[in-house]
Amino acid sequence: MTGAVPQGYDFDGETQLTPAGAGVFEVEISDRWSGLASVNGGFLMATCLKALATGLPFPDPVTVSGLYLRPGNAGASVVRTEVIRAGRTTAFGEAHLLQAGKEVLRVTSAFADLSAAAPESGATPQYAGGTPPKLPAPEDCLRLSGISAISMAKRFEYRAPAMPGWMTGSPSGDPFAEFWMRFADGRPADALTLPFIVDAAPPAVLELGVSSTTIELTVHVRARPAPGWLACRTSTRFVSGGYHEEDFEAWDSTGVLVAQSRQLALVRPLGPLSLSPGASMPGRLPWAES
Amino acid sequence: MTGAVPQGYDFDGETQLTPAGAGVFEVEISDRWSGLASVNGGFLMATCLKALATGLPFPDPVTVSGLYLRPGNAGASVVRTEVIRAGRTTAFGEAHLLQAGKEVLRVTSAFADLSAAAPESGATPQYAGGTPPKLPAPEDCLRLSGISAISMAKRFEYRAPAMPGWMTGSPSGDPFAEFWMRFADGRPADALTLPFIVDAAPPAVLELGVSSTTIELTVHVRARPAPGWLACRTSTRFVSGGYHEEDFEAWDSTGVLVAQSRQLALVRPLGPLSLSPGASMPGRLPWAES
Repeated sequence: MTGAVPQGYDFDGETQLTPAGAGVFEVEISDRWSGLASVNGGFLMATCLKALATGLPFPDPVTVSGLYLRPGNAGASVVRTEVIRAGRTTAFGEAHLLQAGKEVLRVTSAFADLSAAAPESGATPQYAGGTPPKLPAPEDCLRLSGISAISMAKRFEYRAPAMPGWMTGSPSGDPFAEFWMRFADGRPADALTLPFIVDAAPPAVLELGVSSTTIELTVHVRARPAPGWLACRTSTRFVSGGYHEEDFEAWDSTGVLVAQSRQLALVRPLGPLSLSPGASMPGRLPWAES
Repeated sequence: MTGAVPQGYDFDGETQLTPAGAGVFEVEISDRWSGLASVNGGFLMATCLKALATGLPFPDPVTVSGLYLRPGNAGASVVRTEVIRAGRTTAFGEAHLLQAGKEVLRVTSAFADLSAAAPESGATPQYAGGTPPKLPAPEDCLRLSGISAISMAKRFEYRAPAMPGWMTGSPSGDPFAEFWMRFADGRPADALTLPFIVDAAPPAVLELGVSSTTIELTVHVRARPAPGWLACRTSTRFVSGGYHEEDFEAWDSTGVLVAQSRQLALVRPLGPLSLSPGASMPGRLPWAES
């Protein structure tokens, strides 16, 4: 089973589900997990996963995909869940998040028990063709704090060895970043919140001078994270035809890859004033120089 | 609109949909697009996309995700489709493939018009952080032909500069491959078949001496391919806890990235005899030395 998360953390308190029929839940979406334009997509995905987890026999969403149909808003919402199939080792489910009767997000996911697939069993090979970001210790990094208009930026702590180029008004031209990340209130990351965390950092395309709106996000949760900071790496390799992909890796404090994600997103214009603290801009922009 | 594909190609002839109610189609799944254990997952996904395309106002599946719930078999099947939302520039749909009343594959997808998001418009930046595989011309490569028991291997042509290690009984230990690929009957690849093609090559983990069963596959179609060979790259970076991801890139004959995919798969054992032509083995194994 997933380790129990102590009560009292913001994420848990603000994603409380009220049963409203078989597989249906009511949830009040908070305004405290938003970018400037709308509620963060990863937050909505994690809310759906929390609802799905109540009906599936395994605790860990090893893969989850979401289609972002409309911008999500704060306020009264409904999550409808379906158990597609519960097999011997893998269970599949689907969830719909609705606001004012309109579907905002559709999520499909496969759950399993990551503690059962123990790497030390020797039954399968281990292979790592990549390593965690090489970062100075978090206490030797700069703390990047939030634009006041982006409520989500206060709910995470981000640390990096240097200010990103886009934050200083000089996008680097290289859509790549490495940094530390954790919940600001000390909540440990877990399998159900990793799909939120991979979407809760600034898009790498800010280094190209543009912003981004997610169409689809797929997350693989590869292991349950150990407590502590997550070392994160975000990158975009291809911007073409108005679209870009973004990849995200999260590594736990013991050097284990715990999540891999990729999203397809629309490129959005970024006005010249948009990087200033408090400025209004579309899309995801969870952190910036304070 | 998508360029019309001339009639008479195998894929088109063997994925004919018969309307059977609103958004419902009957289709006879061929036994000619299979690995040894079951029908190829990408083939089933492309069949679902073909059904979805009939009901959506845009032709190109810019992103598609599939959950593989059960092994797919040849025989009578039903595809049920749903239009989730048709917006101004993006339309979202879901399809279920059923066999003997049981759901085998669930697909969610966003369609758009890739000709409308013309790169030459200058409205958005272009960025490429990668290049096509550097391969000798197809005529200077080895032709890799199929194990007789794998029907799909005859439906594609694969060419590579050298025999892969796993084919010669000496897996390289590096789960990575680059090769040319095209339909054997000359059918041009298009936006609707790229999600099949990315799953129709041997898994890179064969170079680790294991095979693979797909749980989830996500494909981004980034551009409509020009006619000709596709230069392909497949790689796995992480095998852990019994799972691995696999990434696939397909580049068209003009050097444009046309598809990017990632799947989460279960590692499967590969018996010592399994690499011999005609041997029986589980999982995906579309090609091997003849």
